Parts: sequence; C-alpha cells; structure tokens
Amino acid sequence: MKLTCSSVDLQTHLSLSCRAVPSRPSHPILGNILLSACSDTQQIHLTAFNLSLGIKTRFLAHIETGGQVTIPAKLFQDIVSHLPEGDITVSVQPEPQETEDADPSWMITLTHASGRYQFKGTNPEDFPQLPAINGGHSLQIPTSSLSEGVQSSLVATSTDEAKQVLCGVHLTVQPDFLEFAATDGHRLAVAQTATQVTETETTDEAQAEPTQLTIPTKTLTELDRILSTSKPENPIALYYCQGQVIFDAQSAYLTSRTLEGQYPEYRALIPKKFKNHITVEKRQLLKALERIAILADPKNKVIRLTLDKKNQHVLLTTATENGTGQEVIPAQISGKDLEIAFNSQYLIEGLKVTKTSDIRLQINETHSPAILTPLGGQNLTYLLMPVQITG
Amino acid sequence: MKLTCSSVDLQTHLSLSCRAVPSRPSHPILGNILLSACSDTQQIHLTAFNLSLGIKTRFLAHIETGGQVTIPAKLFQDIVSHLPEGDITVSVQPEPQETEDADPSWMITLTHASGRYQFKGTNPEDFPQLPAINGGHSLQIPTSSLSEGVQSSLVATSTDEAKQVLCGVHLTVQPDFLEFAATDGHRLAVAQTATQVTETETTDEAQAEPTQLTIPTKTLTELDRILSTSKPENPIALYYCQGQVIFDAQSAYLTSRTLEGQYPEYRALIPKKFKNHITVEKRQLLKALERIAILADPKNKVIRLTLDKKNQHVLLTTATENGTGQEVIPAQISGKDLEIAFNSQYLIEGLKVTKTSDIRLQINETHSPAILTPLGGQNLTYLLMPVQITG
Repeated sequence: MKLTCSSVDLQTHLSLSCRAVPSRPSHPILGNILLSACSDTQQIHLTAFNLSLGIKTRFLAHIETGGQVTIPAKLFQDIVSHLPEGDITVSVQPEPQETEDADPSWMITLTHASGRYQFKGTNPEDFPQLPAINGGHSLQIPTSSLSEGVQSSLVATSTDEAKQVLCGVHLTVQPDFLEFAATDGHRLAVAQTATQVTETETTDEAQAEPTQLTIPTKTLTELDRILSTSKPENPIALYYCQGQVIFDAQSAYLTSRTLEGQYPEYRALIPKKFKNHITVEKRQLLKALERIAILADPKNKVIRLTLDKKNQHVLLTTATENGTGQEVIPAQISGKDLEIAFNSQYLIEGLKVTKTSDIRLQINETHSPAILTPLGGQNLTYLLMPVQITG
Repeated sequence: MKLTCSSVDLQTHLSLSCRAVPSRPSHPILGNILLSACSDTQQIHLTAFNLSLGIKTRFLAHIETGGQVTIPAKLFQDIVSHLPEGDITVSVQPEPQETEDADPSWMITLTHASGRYQFKGTNPEDFPQLPAINGGHSLQIPTSSLSEGVQSSLVATSTDEAKQVLCGVHLTVQPDFLEFAATDGHRLAVAQTATQVTETETTDEAQAEPTQLTIPTKTLTELDRILSTSKPENPIALYYCQGQVIFDAQSAYLTSRTLEGQYPEYRALIPKKFKNHITVEKRQLLKALERIAILADPKNKVIRLTLDKKNQHVLLTTATENGTGQEVIPAQISGKDLEIAFNSQYLIEGLKVTKTSDIRLQINETHSPAILTPLGGQNLTYLLMPVQITG
C-alpha cells in the first residue's frame, strides 16, 4: 500500500474518526484505526469502532497502491497532529514473520518533507466490520434540520446509565418534520425542525406508523461534530433497522446501536394552556441566573422567581447560609403575581440552547410544570418541573 | 464602610490577589480576602496571604466611608467575575451579636445596576499582617528587565520540594545587570538582563557583596502575572532582608519568603570553550522535536542528535519499541561529526523560552554539557546535560 495525501486532510479526518476509539479498549484491536486506501476511487477511509459507535471518514488522496492496515490510534493521531502543512506519504510493507504461526504485522512508514516515522500496524482482518443495514428504511434529511434538532435536545438527556432509554434522544420522523425529544425526568426538551424528508427506500410493504428511534447521547454528540464540518444544505442519508442506525454524511459515515425500550409518552406532559406568560430578554435572564446560581444551594441549586405584574419585572432570589442574592429583570408579564422555584442549572441549560434574543416562560401554578420557548424561528419546547418552595 | 468602584477594576485586582489564597487554607481566615478602603487616598486594597506568599493590589475607587473587612475569597470572586460592566457599590455593616462573646461579623452588600448580593464577612483583625521589611535593602528595577529574566529562567527550576533551594530562581543584583539562575540538576538556565539598578536605601554601612536572593518558583510565577499588567518602562521597587523579599509594582505589592541555603556555584558548570557550534532555525527545530518526542521513550524521553557537517544538517532520531522517527534540520555546523543524546523535554522547554528566530547549540563531546543560546537580543545560557547513548 502506498499513498500521498495532505497532512491537513489526514488531521481533520483522523480527529473525527478517533472520537469512536474507546479510551480503554475492551479488545486491543479497538484501540486502532483501520486505514483503507482504494486505488479505484482514490479515496482513503479511516474507521474507528467501539462496538457501539462506529465512525468511518473518507477523503480524496493520491493512491498509488491500495490496501488496508490497522494502526495504533493514539500514536498515529499524536504524530499526524504535529505534522507541518504539506503532502505526506504513507507506505505499508509486510514485516518478515519470525515464526510461521506468528501474527502477521506491517511496517508503516510516514514521510513528510523533512522527516520519516515508522511504526507497526496489525492485521486489518482482525478489525471488526461496522454493522451494515440490509433492507430496513432509508431517508434523506437536510444537514441543517438534523443539526438544529440535535443541538436543541441533547442537553435534556439523562447521564444516569440506569435510566437506559432516557440516555438518548428520541427521534420521530414525520413526512414534513422531525421531532427530537429528550428528558431526564426533571426537564423535557422537544424540538421540531420542519423539513422535507425523502423516504428513499423501504422493505416494508406499508409503513403506517412514523419512524421512531432512540439514539444514544454520545452518538449524537459525535454526529453534531461531523455535521458541523458539512455544508448546511447537504442531505444526510439515514438508514435504520431494528437496533441499528446509520448516518451517512458525504465525508463521514456514523453507525450506532439504538436504545431499546418504550420511550415515555412525553407529549401528554406538556400543558396546552397557561395562566401566566412572561417574555424576557434571554441574555439578561441568563447572566442574572448565572450570577445568582453562585449563591444557590450547591445540592439542589434552587432559585426563586417572583412575578411582579404591576412593575412588569421578575425578581430572582436565592438565600442560603452563604448569603442572599436578588436580581430584577424587566419582563412583559400577563397573568397574576406568583412565586415559583426552579433548579437554576436546568433553567440555565434550557436558555443556552435557545437561539433567539427573547424567550417566553409559561407557568400555571407554583407546583405545575412550566415551559420555556424561544420567541420566533426555533421550534423548541423546554419543559421544567418546579421545585417545592420551602420557608 | 461604603464604596463604589468599577466592576472591571474589581475583577482584575481580585483575580490577581486571589492567586495567593491557598486552595486548602491551614487556617480558615486565609481562605479570605482582606478588603480595605481608605477614604483619604480613595483607594481599595485587596490582600491575600498563604503565609509564604502575600499579594496586595490597589486601585482607585470612590470611597464614601473607609474601613476594612475580610470576605470569603472564592465566593466573592465567583460573584464578582459574573458582574456586568459598570459601577458596583460595596457596603459593610456590623451584624448584631447574638451573645456577648460571639465573634463579631459583618454583612457585606454588593449592589449593581439590576441586582444585590449579601454575604457575611469576618473580623479583619484576625487577618494576618503581610510581613514588612524595616531596614534592609531597597532597589528600583525596570519592569521589562525583571520580566525578561523571570520568564527565561523559571522553566529550569526543580519541582521536587526535597531539593529546597533548587525550587526557586537565584537572583544576583549587580549595579548594571541582573542575573537569574535556575537549575533542577539536569539543566541550568542563566539569564542576564542589562539594566540600571538604583540602590535607593540600605542600612548596611558598606555592601561589598552583590545582592543574592533565591526566590520560590510560585512567587515568581505570580510576579510575572503582575508584571504583565504593568507598563514595561515602570520601575518595580524591590525590598529585601534576611528571609523576605517584597516586589512593589504600582498596582500590586507582592511579599514572599526567600529560600534559605547555599545556592550551587553554577557559573563553574558552564564550559568556556566548545568544539562544535550549530546554528539552526529555532521554530523548525522545535516543531521537529515536538513530533519526534512522541515516539521517544516516555520515561527518559531520549532523542539523539547526529551532526552531519558535510551536509550541513542535524539528524534527529529516536527508536523505541513503538517505532522509529527521524527528522532532518538544515544547520550551520562548525566542528566535527558527532552524536549526542538529550532528554527531548528539556531541549523543547529550553527552546520555548528563547525569543529569537535562530538559536545556537554548542557542544564539546558526547558526554559533556552542551549549551543552547538565542542568537541576538536575549542574554540566556541554557545548559543541558546529555544522556548516555546506548545501543
């Protein structure tokens, strides 16, 4: 195998694919990157796989002789990340075997303008194949819709692995929109992105139900990273069948298991009507919350909101043994005066995923769920359970 | 006590002084900042002290009523760092004492345009006084000279506290230059900065010997931070006597213990003559070393330099069980062909403190010390002990 490529291309694609290399591989081979070079397509493929998430990136190079080899991922990435801009040549030669039953190995030589590095690669045949999807469904989704939905919902997923299906985002594909839902039991984010989804292929004769998948947080974090390198107007192909999903962007291909189990019926949790509507400038509220959260109880992080309709402002307060804090935020308030308390972190995280300059907070009573929505542009409903007010 | 100041001024000075707040205070009071406001000078002083290093910063404010109080440093800094730009008011009121023998406490109220924070402060009389120097010596040193010397030498200090005097920089004050020396036993950095030192005061009748002080690494790291906020042409006043040193920049005042004990006679270690002189482009050598160091043995980090006089280049090589690397660097070489090995980290760190585009490496034999010097401008001698070449 022999090829020449740009060091920048190799750096970019290696850093994307290496995200799927496990930090503590359960099998030594998973600590490697599979490098495949195809002389017909003049493409390099870099594949990493932690048995749950797989990332394969591809880019053009000058392939003199095709072939494949597995390379220690960390070492390879360390060296490549320090290479100067310019062309680099990778050549791979089989190593003479000392005994007949020894594992075959390869010598990889990486040459740039002023230096040369050599290290051993192992048998590419030992590298597990990424799961393929035969049959099942296939859709085309614009990058921007997928990206917006993922970014709006990821924050509300659970990090507690015992909560299984809550450790992911639940995606519902409708013909003219995508819905992304995530909840950790304390808050719920539901984002819709209007889009023209094209069903390109299905093996089912008739599909009455909309497609529903729960995709792990880690997968979507990596997908978001890959999408950020794609053009927003480019379509992403999505393939799925029982237990597996594949996202295929032009330059990278991501495969992941899905989370099995019934996702909660979250739509029923969102109140249809509210008695109080508060509109505030998002940045002002966010900055005030970040200040006041410093004095909130480190355990439950409670801050209290007092709606003052007469003065058209919201009072944020906190009081712990460390001290007390209050902030006054001008607001448009309709409804009645009311006190309600939230976990400040959940409120801050919800505000951070809104992308509009103003937001609306809708509240019924002190003990019933409230929702936060951006005003204009972004279709996101962020539901928050209030915290019991004591004292 | 009541005062108004700019939030930006408070943020800047608090972050400088808080560097002397110990992360785990041996006495609770040391986890505080002493805030003093003087109505005569209209200045705020912020003082932190970990019993070894003390930092007092000062800035102008509008002081309505003077006074002082100690404030929990972390909480205060957290809140202040989140304040919006603008004026803030600090007022301090004594708290009613519940019993007669209870410790007195103060309520601190911090008010900005849209919010108010209150927390308790404790007795400023419990805060230890920063060491003062009565008598002793006093010098005026330009900021730029001090800063350059500190930055060039700090890297070579030891981090092993058992090595005592080596955990600091040895400063020698001569009438027309300062000399900064640091060594950890593996390398030695000696920097000289030409300057007009003004001896402003001394209580000794005659001082035949030049001033010599060994100042702890941590002190100089913080001094460097303070100097970076001062104008290069401003003078710094240096006061010292047995065991103590004080640096007085206009906006901040730093006091520190010095390290006691005889500093090694380092000047004798620097060879006067060399057989081999190598001039190379610094950036090229540094980048090549950073690449090749990845493949060096993680324990001793050895890389080998081969001088090739005929081809006027230096070959850098490394070989471990992980793989081999080589880099070729064009160089002007006078002397003879030679192989020598160094700890790559020490060489990299030495190169990083040089500020010139070209550097010179001077070598005698494979086993004798080599020196690295920047070419032009900066007066630095960085001596490196070679590593035994094996195999």
